[in-house]
Parts: sequence; C-alpha cells; structure tokens
Amino acid sequence: MIPRYSRPAMTAIWTPEARFRIWFEIEAHATDALAELGVVPKDAAAAIWERGAFEVDRIDAIERETKHDVIAFLTNVAEHVGPEARFMHQGMTSSDVLDTCLSVQLARASDILLADLDALLAVLERRAREHKLTPTIGRSHGIHAEPVTFGLKLAQAHAEFARNRARLVAARTDIATCAISGAVGTFANIDPFVEQYVADKLGLAVEPVSTQVIPRDRHALYFATLGVIASSVERLATEIRHLQRTEVLEAEEYFAPGQKGSSAMPHKRNPVLTENLTGLARMVRGYVTPALENVALWHERDISHSSVERYIGPDATITLDFALARLTGVIDKLLVYPERMAKNLNKMGGLVHSQRVLLALTQAGVSREDAYRLVQRNAMKVWDSDGALSLMELLKADPDVTAALSLEEIEDKFDLGYHLKHVDTIFARVFGAA
Amino acid sequence: MIPRYSRPAMTAIWTPEARFRIWFEIEAHATDALAELGVVPKDAAAAIWERGAFEVDRIDAIERETKHDVIAFLTNVAEHVGPEARFMHQGMTSSDVLDTCLSVQLARASDILLADLDALLAVLERRAREHKLTPTIGRSHGIHAEPVTFGLKLAQAHAEFARNRARLVAARTDIATCAISGAVGTFANIDPFVEQYVADKLGLAVEPVSTQVIPRDRHALYFATLGVIASSVERLATEIRHLQRTEVLEAEEYFAPGQKGSSAMPHKRNPVLTENLTGLARMVRGYVTPALENVALWHERDISHSSVERYIGPDATITLDFALARLTGVIDKLLVYPERMAKNLNKMGGLVHSQRVLLALTQAGVSREDAYRLVQRNAMKVWDSDGALSLMELLKADPDVTAALSLEEIEDKFDLGYHLKHVDTIFARVFGAA
Amino acid sequence: MIPRYSRPAMTAIWTPEARFRIWFEIEAHATDALAELGVVPKDAAAAIWERGAFEVDRIDAIERETKHDVIAFLTNVAEHVGPEARFMHQGMTSSDVLDTCLSVQLARASDILLADLDALLAVLERRAREHKLTPTIGRSHGIHAEPVTFGLKLAQAHAEFARNRARLVAARTDIATCAISGAVGTFANIDPFVEQYVADKLGLAVEPVSTQVIPRDRHALYFATLGVIASSVERLATEIRHLQRTEVLEAEEYFAPGQKGSSAMPHKRNPVLTENLTGLARMVRGYVTPALENVALWHERDISHSSVERYIGPDATITLDFALARLTGVIDKLLVYPERMAKNLNKMGGLVHSQRVLLALTQAGVSREDAYRLVQRNAMKVWDSDGALSLMELLKADPDVTAALSLEEIEDKFDLGYHLKHVDTIFARVFGAA
Amino acid sequence: MIPRYSRPAMTAIWTPEARFRIWFEIEAHATDALAELGVVPKDAAAAIWERGAFEVDRIDAIERETKHDVIAFLTNVAEHVGPEARFMHQGMTSSDVLDTCLSVQLARASDILLADLDALLAVLERRAREHKLTPTIGRSHGIHAEPVTFGLKLAQAHAEFARNRARLVAARTDIATCAISGAVGTFANIDPFVEQYVADKLGLAVEPVSTQVIPRDRHALYFATLGVIASSVERLATEIRHLQRTEVLEAEEYFAPGQKGSSAMPHKRNPVLTENLTGLARMVRGYVTPALENVALWHERDISHSSVERYIGPDATITLDFALARLTGVIDKLLVYPERMAKNLNKMGGLVHSQRVLLALTQAGVSREDAYRLVQRNAMKVWDSDGALSLMELLKADPDVTAALSLEEIEDKFDLGYHLKHVDTIFARVFGAA
Repeated sequence: MIPRYSRPAMTAIWTPEARFRIWFEIEAHATDALAELGVVPKDAAAAIWERGAFEVDRIDAIERETKHDVIAFLTNVAEHVGPEARFMHQGMTSSDVLDTCLSVQLARASDILLADLDALLAVLERRAREHKLTPTIGRSHGIHAEPVTFGLKLAQAHAEFARNRARLVAARTDIATCAISGAVGTFANIDPFVEQYVADKLGLAVEPVSTQVIPRDRHALYFATLGVIASSVERLATEIRHLQRTEVLEAEEYFAPGQKGSSAMPHKRNPVLTENLTGLARMVRGYVTPALENVALWHERDISHSSVERYIGPDATITLDFALARLTGVIDKLLVYPERMAKNLNKMGGLVHSQRVLLALTQAGVSREDAYRLVQRNAMKVWDSDGALSLMELLKADPDVTAALSLEEIEDKFDLGYHLKHVDTIFARVFGAA
Repeated sequence: MIPRYSRPAMTAIWTPEARFRIWFEIEAHATDALAELGVVPKDAAAAIWERGAFEVDRIDAIERETKHDVIAFLTNVAEHVGPEARFMHQGMTSSDVLDTCLSVQLARASDILLADLDALLAVLERRAREHKLTPTIGRSHGIHAEPVTFGLKLAQAHAEFARNRARLVAARTDIATCAISGAVGTFANIDPFVEQYVADKLGLAVEPVSTQVIPRDRHALYFATLGVIASSVERLATEIRHLQRTEVLEAEEYFAPGQKGSSAMPHKRNPVLTENLTGLARMVRGYVTPALENVALWHERDISHSSVERYIGPDATITLDFALARLTGVIDKLLVYPERMAKNLNKMGGLVHSQRVLLALTQAGVSREDAYRLVQRNAMKVWDSDGALSLMELLKADPDVTAALSLEEIEDKFDLGYHLKHVDTIFARVFGAA
Repeated sequence: MIPRYSRPAMTAIWTPEARFRIWFEIEAHATDALAELGVVPKDAAAAIWERGAFEVDRIDAIERETKHDVIAFLTNVAEHVGPEARFMHQGMTSSDVLDTCLSVQLARASDILLADLDALLAVLERRAREHKLTPTIGRSHGIHAEPVTFGLKLAQAHAEFARNRARLVAARTDIATCAISGAVGTFANIDPFVEQYVADKLGLAVEPVSTQVIPRDRHALYFATLGVIASSVERLATEIRHLQRTEVLEAEEYFAPGQKGSSAMPHKRNPVLTENLTGLARMVRGYVTPALENVALWHERDISHSSVERYIGPDATITLDFALARLTGVIDKLLVYPERMAKNLNKMGGLVHSQRVLLALTQAGVSREDAYRLVQRNAMKVWDSDGALSLMELLKADPDVTAALSLEEIEDKFDLGYHLKHVDTIFARVFGAA
Repeated sequence: MIPRYSRPAMTAIWTPEARFRIWFEIEAHATDALAELGVVPKDAAAAIWERGAFEVDRIDAIERETKHDVIAFLTNVAEHVGPEARFMHQGMTSSDVLDTCLSVQLARASDILLADLDALLAVLERRAREHKLTPTIGRSHGIHAEPVTFGLKLAQAHAEFARNRARLVAARTDIATCAISGAVGTFANIDPFVEQYVADKLGLAVEPVSTQVIPRDRHALYFATLGVIASSVERLATEIRHLQRTEVLEAEEYFAPGQKGSSAMPHKRNPVLTENLTGLARMVRGYVTPALENVALWHERDISHSSVERYIGPDATITLDFALARLTGVIDKLLVYPERMAKNLNKMGGLVHSQRVLLALTQAGVSREDAYRLVQRNAMKVWDSDGALSLMELLKADPDVTAALSLEEIEDKFDLGYHLKHVDTIFARVFGAA
C-alpha cells in the first residue's frame, strides 16, 4: 500500500480495526445462531454483543506469544466478555473467520470499485455527449485513417468500462461467500444452520463445499477481473498520453496553476497522471498471476495463499480504486482542443478520404485492383509532399480518374459529414435511445 | 501447438482452411446483406456462394507478394468467382473479417471446452457418488486433520468446475461479437444493417463500438478465464499427485499394461499424467498476461495484438482442451484404495479426533484454555510415539480429563460416523437433491 | 510493504528519510564537482554540506503545492542553506537525482540480500555436513526411487543458492550506475566530469548513455534475478513441506514452546513457515512482469515506471530479505529425524534397489528387455503387498533370476553403502575439497 | 511455433531429428567413457558409433506402445546396432539424456541469438554513426524537451543490446551443463568420469549436484534473460512506432514496392513490423513466469517442467530469434528523415531552449524561483500560440529578462550546437574511441 496511491474509504477496509470488527461480527452472529439451535445459552450470545470489544495492540501482543492471530483475537475478546466468551467459536476453525472476513472485505471493496466505475461512466458519458460531433482523425497503427469524433472515442471507453462493471458485479457475486464449516469443511462440530445464518446476516451466499478454506478459484477470478479493468484503464490512459504529445496536442490533462512540469523545462506540460495510470495498471495486472498460483492449495488447504492475500487484497483494490478515481478526474477535467483536432485532420492533404474515392471508382466500374492503383499513385504524391499537395486536386487532374468520376463526384467524396452519419446509431447502442 | 498435447477437434478450428472458410462466410453473408440493401447486385451475391472457393497454398503465394493476408484471400477468391468478386468486401476493412473470424473461432473453441467441462463434471459426479462415504483423512498443511470422505474431495472439485463452466459461458458471451464497421468503426462506407445481418447468421452479437477492431478487453477476460480453469486443473492434479505418493498411496493414476514408469526403476508407477497437467496449467496461465497486455492498443487500433493471438488463440484453447480431457480420463479411471485410506486415517493413534474431545471438555465446563492444554499434552505423547500410542487410551488414563468426561463420553468422541453426518447436505448443495 | 514480512535494515533503505539523504548526497557531491570545475563557488559547495538539512514533513507540504518532489526537496534544503542553495542542481534534471538514488538503494538492498544469502549458505553447509551420510530415500515423481542422503539434498540447495548469489552479484553490478546527464542525457548543461565524480563518491559506475533516465532493462534484469531467487526459496520450502507431511515426517520446522498450530486441533504441527515462504515467493515472482513492462518507455523517457518502482522497489527487496532470513531460520533449526528416514527408506520392501538388480542381470548377459521383465514381475508383487513382501527374497526365489545371479550376488545388490560411495565427490564439487 | 515467426536455423534445433541426434551422441559418448573405464567392451562402444541410427517414425511408434520416449529411442537404436546395444545407457537414467540434450539445445539456441545480437549491434552502430550528428528533438513524457541526435537514440539502443548480449553469454554459461548421474544423482551405477567425459565432448560443464534432473533455476534465469531482451526489443520497436506516427514522421519502416498497407486506405504506410515486434515481445515475456514456476519441482524431481519446456524451449528461442532478425532488418533499412526532424525540432518556437535561459538567468544572479517564473510566463505564451510565437523574441521583449541578460546572451542560448558538444563523449563510451 503506497499512501500516495491510496484513498481513505478503500484503505479503511484493510485496517486491522476493520478486520477485527468483521471477525467480531462473524463470531457474534455465529454465537447467536448456536444460541438459536440451543447449543449455547442465549445469554452468552447476548453478552458477546454487549460486552464484546477488542484492542488491536493487545491482540498483536498476544499473537506475538501464541503466533496465532485468531486465538489472540478470541483471547482478547474474552478479556472483555468474561466467562461467556467460552461459547464463542464453538465448532469453528480459524479459517471460518478469516475466509469469511476476506469475502466481506472483497465485497466491500467491490462496492467502492463499482461506485468508482459509475463515476467514471458518468463522466465518460458527459464528455462523450459534449464531443459527440467533434471531428477528429481516427488512427490505426498511429497513422491517420478516417475521421471519427472525439465523442466516439469516449463512447468506446464507456462501452468498455460498462463491460468491466458487469464483470465486476459477476466477480463480486463469485467472491461473496461464507464458510463456517469447521476444520475440514464437514460441519462435524457445527450445524450448517450457523453458516446459513451468518451468511444471511452478512449478505453473503453459503459456500457449497469448503475444505476449511473457501476455494481460491473464486479469488483468482476476482483478481483477474481487476487485472482486466486495469488494462482498460491503461488503454484510455494511453490514448490521452498520445493525444497530449507535442506534435498531436489534441487534448491535455488539466494543468493546475502552480504545478511545475519539470525542474528544468518550465514550458513542459506532461501527461504525468496518465503515465502514472499506465504504471498502476502494470501493478494491478502483476497481482493476477500470484492469485492464479494460489488456487492449487494442497489437499484440504495449506496456508501459502495467506501471505499473498495480505499483499494483493489491499494492494490490488486500493491501487485500482485510486486509478479509477484518477482516471475519472483526468477525463472530467480533460482539456480538449477541437481546433487542433481539425487542423490535424486536414493536415494530410485529404488522404483520409482516399477510401471513399476507391469505393466510388469501383462502383463506377473500375476493377478493384485498378482503382487501388489509381488512388495509391495520387496518394503517394500527397504523402511525399508532407500534406502540401491536395489529394482532391490531384485526382481532379488525373485523366484516368476523371474518366470514371466527374469533378463533382470527386469533390463529394471529401465531405466530412459522410463519416459521421452513423454516430447517432453508435451512441444509441452505448447510451440507449436519446 | 504441441501435437502430443492437442486433440483434433480443437486443432481443426485453428487450421488455415477453417480460418479461410470463416472469412469466406463472413464475406459472403456481408455481400448478401449488401444485396438486400440494393448496394450490390443480388446475382453477384449469389455468384459468390456458388463459385466461391479458395486454396490455402495460393493465398500464401499471393500474400508473400502483397504482404497482406486479406487482400491475398480476396484475390484468390476472385480468381474463382470472376468479375462479381468486386462486390465483395465493399466498405469493409480487413479487421472486420479478421476480428469477427476470431470471435467465431473462440466461440467454437468455447463450445468444445464446455463439452470438456461437461464430461469432466459427469465423471466427477459419478466418482464422487461412488465414494460418497469412503472415509479418508482430511489434511490441512499436509498434516492429518479430521476425517472427510473421498467423495467430498471430488464433490469440491465438481463445485469448482461447475463455477468454471459458468465463467466460461460468460466469457463466451463476452467474446462472441461481430464487427463490420469499416476502417475506423464509423460505418462510413457500410450500413450497420450488414453487421447485424452477419452477426445473426453467425450466432454473434454486434459489437456496440468497434474502432476497426473489436476491443481486446473481451479477449483478455476470455484468456483470464481459461487461466482460472487451468489453475483448477492444477489443483485437482496436485491432489492426485499427493495421493499417489509412496507414503500416502490412497489413489493412483491408471497404469496401463505395457507402460514403463522408468527406464531404470521398473517398479515405479509415477503420476506422470497429473504432473503433466501441472505443467500444462502453467502454460495456460502464462498466456493470461500477454492477453492483458493486448488491451491497450494505440488509438483506434494497432496490430501488436495480432501476433500474440496467433500464439495464444490456438495454444491456450488446444492446451486446455487437452488438459481437461486428460484430467477427465485420470478421474474416470483413477485407482482408489479405500483400505489404504482407512489405514492412513487410523495411523495417528486417533489424534484426528482431538478437536471433538476439546469441544466436549469445554461443553463439560472446562475453560477453553484448560481444555486445550489437557488435550494437547496427551496429543503430544501420541505424536511423539509416531502413532504407537492411542489418544483415546491416554485420555481415559488422564485424571484431569476423566474428572470432566466419563469413559463412555471419551469413547464416543472417537466415532468416525460423527464426521460424516452432513455429507448428504453437502452433496445436495453440489448435485441437487438426491 | 507488509510489516510482518519486513525486517528493519531493509525497510530502512526505503524510508523517505533515507531517500532524501541520498538525494542530498547526490546534490552535494555534484555541487562539489561543479565547484572543482569552477562553475560554482567552492564556498557554496561547502555551505551545502555544512548547513544542508531537510524535514520530510516540510518536503511533503511543499510537494502538495508544487506537485513535484525534487523541487519540493530543493526548496526545503534551500530554506536551510540560504542563498548558496541556488548553486545546487545546476544543469541537472530531477531524474539525475531520482534514478541515481534508486541505484544506490538497489545496490544497498543487494548488499543485504547478499548477506542473507551468505547466512543461508553457511547454514546449508553446516546442516549438509551434519547429515552428509544420513540415508534417506530419493524420490522422483513423489515415488520412492533410490537412496540419497539428507546432506545431498542440502548440498543441492547450497549449490543452487550459490548460483543465485553469483547472479545477484551480477545484477547488482548491472544496476549500480549513476546518471547525471541533464534533461535528455546530452550533458548540455553539465559536464560529464560531474557524473563521474558523483559515481566515484557513491561507488557506482557511470551510465554510458542515459536519456534523462537510466535505462530500465537494468532494473528488469534485477527484479527478474530476485524472481529466480524467490523460486529457489520456493523449491527448498516445498521440500520441507513435503518432508513434514504426516505420512512422511522426516523433518519438521522447529516448534516453539507455546506455539499453537490450530485453534481446533491441538496436536497439529504445521509447516506454516515454509508454506508462508511459498506464498512470499509468488509475490516476488509477481513483480518480475511489471519490471519487464517498465523497459519500453516512450522516447527518451516517460514516467510510467515510477509508480511501479514505488511498489516493487521496496516490496520485492523487503519480501525477499524476509524470506531468505526466514528460510535460513527454518534450515538452521530444522528438526531432522534420521530414524524416520530409515524407516521410510525400507518400507517398500527393497524396491528401491531394483535398478541395481536390473543392471546386474544385464551385466550377467540377460538382455535389457528380459532383465526389465524379470525385475518388474517381482517388483510388482512387492508393490501390491504394500511393502510386506521383500524384493530380495522374491528374487532369490525366482529361478529365472537365480539362473543368472547367485544368492550372494543378489544380496549384494541390496547394500545401501553402494549408493553413497560418491557423496564425497559431490560434496567436494559443492563445498570444495574437504 | 508459428511458421511465419520462425527462421530455419533456430527451428532446426528443435526438430525430433535434431533432438534424437543429440540423444544418440550423449549415449554414444557415454558408452565410450564406459569403455574407457572397462565397464563395457570397447568394441561395443565402437559398434554404436558405426551402426547406430534411428528413425523418428519408428521411435514414435514404439513410444505409442511403451509410453516412454527414451526407451522407445533405445529400442529403435538397438534395432540397428544389434546385441552390443545392451551396453548403451548403462547406469544412466532418462533424464541424463533429456536434460543434457536440453542444455545442448539451449546452448546452440544461444549461439544463434548471440549472432543475432551481433548483427543487430553492427547495424545499430552503422546507423548510429551515420546519424551521429543528425539533430532531433528529445522527448520526455512524449513532450518536446531538448535536442538530441538520432545517432544518440541508436547509441542508447546499442548500449542496451550490448548489455543484453553480456547477459545472454552469462545465461548460456549458466544453462550449459551436463548431468549423467543416474536415477537420483548419486552416481550409484555410473562413475562421475562418464559425466565429465560427455560434458567435455559436448562443450558443457558438469552439473555439480543433479537430482536426476538439472536444477531448473538455471532454465528460469535463462528464460528470464530472454524476457529482458524481448523487452528491449519492444523499447526500440516502440520508438520506431512513435517516430512513424503521421504527426511525427521522422522515420519509417522500409516500404517495399508492391506492399499494401491497408485493404481500404491505399495511402497508409503502417509500422507493422515494429507493432508485430511489440506483440512478439509480449509472448517471450509471457514465457518467463512458467519458467519460474518450473523451479520448485518436488523432491529429487517431478516431471511438471517437461511439458512447459516443450512449449517454451522452442517458442521462446524461435520467437526471439525471429524478432531480433526482424528488428535488425527494420533498423538496417529504416527510412530516416532529417528534414522532418529539424522541422519538428523547431516547431515549438524555441521552447526547447528554455532551460538554457533558466540557467543563464540564475547564473546572472536571479534566484532560481524568479528565473523559473520569468521563463515560464514567456514559455506559456509560446505554448498557447502553438509555436507561432518565438520564445527568443518574447524574452528579448521582456524587461525583467533583459535586466539580467543582454540580447546577445539571449540569442546565444538558442544555439543548437550547444546541445551536441558531448555527443563524441557518449559515442566513445558506447563504441570505444573513434
């Protein structure tokens, strides 16, 4: 956990206080269920809720001696509850507490991440609508292709993050299970009713078959999903970084007054937020493989997954939360330069319209191969002139072209509106009917 | 693609023939749609279906010259179709064909993998029911814990692979989209009707926003899902490997007559299939990161993802298909030794029943700490005797224990049936009501 | 950074105080060099050493305003130094400070890790010599193969970690470079003499070509090397975990008085340290890919690597330091049970000697195929008897065998010493001449 | 192995023929050594060399029955050699052959990769010298920074690949070991002399401690090294991709006559080779983690590594070989546009010289903070004008600036040569003295 890449709400989930509080609730709910079954006295269950308390420092001190965290916790709680504490944890095993707690933490983390995604989606939609018809050049391979709009770029990102939201909802469901099944998952010493009771109280599903532990394929899918979301963050961040290049400069991260871009070059405005997001994405992705390696525990369980989860539980969720919020801020305040987009769009002397001409030629009866050659020989002249020559003018001066197309037909192929006629269709797919 | 780890049906999806056939169908359906729109003659569309053909070698030869695979394909098809071929590919871009083809291939691969999972689930259920009440020791940390049944182990695996099946269904839906939207996804030169038409014919959904390419977050999620499944394969394979250890020997991979385990040690029966599965799982997992790195393409697209997918498209699906089939075979024919399980279960002198005694003592009014100490001091003697001493006998001879529990109560705690009373509950969760 | 998996000396390298102290030294040495060149007054350089100071909180406060850490640092130092501070950082760029600082930190981290490896190697050698001739069964595929000694297992680990030590020395050399070359590495505003001067003072080599940044292939190799070392940690940890299995129990992690293995099963002694090491190895490995992804910075540099290194710089080195120390402790105090090793070695009824018989038969003129069949048919009987039958006795009763070998010859093949005759040779290879 | 990303010399190493030929040589050399020891007849050893032969198809057929590749091989060879074949493989185990063979293959693969690197280094040096003084803008964060030369960019790449070469030499040494030590590495049935003999014949070192297998930390380091090299390939490829962007266009991949960039847009010249290299780098990197996971084999060995190596042995080396050769070709024929570099360099109205002015102001007695503000306020005007205004002219018109610097001094700060004065120094570091 790196403080500068952390936000308080997500960080709070992973504090010792929060963890022990969840432990306490699991134990107290479980004791309630045992009381309902008549296994323990109802008074004892009540006493736990009434007098139950813990201190992180005290637990740490006990753990240093016993080298067992759950025993340390129970010992500390017992110091507050008194004799009735012996009815806690009856028939349970440590993993019942630890794994169910992790489920609660990951579910809560998911809720924050879902809210993050909602905020990002809202900003993407607002800015997409704002620039729905702002023309800009589409680029494949970094090379000018044909016109799109800046709104379409953001609509694409919206659709991608909407998918990610749905994936996270599924991953949250996958991870939100409760296991209270005892030492090897057989309920030998505890009735399955307790598991169902606690699950209901905590908003979890019961784990169909646990083996002391909740199976780690659930967590693997969860962290893999975060890795996919992080990769989408990188995609959009990379787009901004490209747009902010000196030679492109179609958009810029907001530049706060007083911010210094470089200790040496005061004119510089660097896309440092999106570069940072690129790095953060690498980290969240890096946590996927350890999560996958955690699946193959030995027999009913070993504890190799535990240390991994101490790192990646907080690190992956905190980092992704920060990254999503940062990305939302970047998009929210992104400086967009439509004039520069227009300037770049036109700089290639109309080359971006070459395909339309190609199509018109074939529709006028020229073979595809001949049409390709006709367009390419003129396009190459424009390309070699660095945009100084105009493709339209060259075509109008090429007798093989004008043999097939009239001057008006040629001019018509250079109409920008032609490319934008289906923007509404795409927007309706992404944002629903206007 | 490693022949020895490949099966024909999956491999067939990735042959040049299969790929070009899908390309042909995409192009032919698209031309039909264009004909319906009146953009191209209906006769031309019909001619493509009638005379359309291709030869892999000829396409390769043309590609060597043009260095462009789709142009090479179209050129070859045109050689068969004749002049009407110029109406193919109207307004389309290569990626419309390539990406939609990949969707079809991955959807088909998913169908095979789903069938693999179904076969595995069926075998797991059959063997789980067979050994529903075969007692065996549950192990945490590799150390004997409490009794479970061998059927429970397989039921756990069944639940895990059933989850994986559901994940793969979701990933298949995610990946199965069609993009026919032109050079930068604006439908500038092609009506969205064509995309919908082809999607319907091929059983795909339309891609809401493509940017020449189908966005690679879909593929990332897909390969990540395969990575999770592979990790579950590793988990079950690891279980078998452990059970086959010389000292454990509770189960063995089927040993075919004529098979030689070792060129040097003829007595050896090695769990080579499950070791092999462990390695194959590493490979399928290894393909996750490249797939995640493929997401952040530049602007509307670059082609860096393409080479990656030439490897991992076939390699991940073929390897996982093989692994699932191999795992199914291993479980199907697994030699299970209930007597050895019973022998191992009893070898620790009854230590595995210690928790029941612990609970009984606390329920009899002994404090948790005292009960723990009482049990542990006797348990340690058994442990140090390597199973020669019996925990039950030691407890019956310990006056501090007998002060709280009668001899009958002590004996009762060593009843194996106690641990198996909820097996039905768990089986009902996994396999439904009996 | 997880406190429980951290040790103070390594953690200290990564504190803000330590980082700023290194920054200060770089700046002060550089100013000395500039003074030697006559670019800045010698008095100013002296003043920086004399009055230079900083406060972490103050730097943080300034950074919150300027959003630039090096400027914040310089501003704070200037508050102490006074007007002469303007001669600091002349012609330098932030990365000159940041990257050279990281080199120093990674070099220092390497020194700790090398000391860790030395400690581990010493313990491995001591325990290897202690058990040089302690016979134990060698296992391939988890199946008994032929006898080895426990000392050989540790000698193998020694050789592996000695290789890792050499690799880390190489990686340390690779990473320990100094760049003070200005905004894009051209030394436009600073003489290369300054870089050489600072490098010498800090024990670094000069970076031949920096481009504002030190190229990240160096760091990639460094973290990859840590990943290899972590994998070796996992190998040895896995060996211990296997040996501690209930059914094997040839060695155990030291079990501290007062330590509780399980909240439910007081008899359990779990290999939790080595399981933990297995998880820690996954984490250190997980940092390799982000480090590799950091190599391809854009043009002369982007800053995407920075956030990654804020995580993995501390996390990888701190975790590996902890893991090596923990592993050293495990080996140092490992409980080794030679009697159990002997018992396991003999449990297969002498099957482990089957290859010797096979060889003897071929040397006596039996064809390899026939010899294999003769041995295997007897070996299978022993195997099926679960060790109750003796291979030696069966062979002595097999007329096809005794046709080729005398009873004495057969007995001779079951001599354990035969397998240990080259232990000295191997030890001499690893530890040098006795 | 993807044919289009494969070259024949590297592919040849991984054919069954090549593998079996190496097996044969190992076996034949080992028999020679045994003959020298007097263990087997010298005639037999000679017969193996004389009559030894094999057929891949026949081996495959036998393996289908025996399910053991080495036994299948030996059986087939015996069919050629006759009775003397029984003296082959005496005291050896399959892994002696398999692992030593892999060492030979990886060593040979290294030799090809080293030759690839030499070819790349030669091309980088030639083009670096060609453009040693071709000015171009240096960019940090994608934003114009200060001038560099195109030769410096290539010199940086040369230094990076020279480091990679040294790393590969080390990795080759690490991997090139020979193990002929028998079933568990104890030389029980074979004299260490045989291992040394075969090692010498094959140009390998002896493995100090093998445990049937050569330890996989060696291979892990090897594939990690390939991953680092691949990341450097990606760095240089990414540079080219950036330079070829439409808006930058300072360099281009060679565009072959007849090559078509796009089926739709005939004017396009896409950096498809370097995009392809980016994808190939992802694959080679992706093989690192499986190689790391291969290290922790169980006990003396399991065979989980084997399937992994069947993939990554060929795939990593063949792909990297292809990538290095492709990169060499790209650099060799790279179209470089110095005029465009000059144009881009000047497009920001002289902003790239801002740091020189900043330094001059501080050297003229202005405080660093004031100097920064003075430069920044003028730089921002230039930035906002999109390069239409000239920084030099604005500074000359700013009385706060001219109060500190004369007009001549200001003009002097805009001299390009100032930035190139240490290019010779850097080239000497990289390429040695001129």
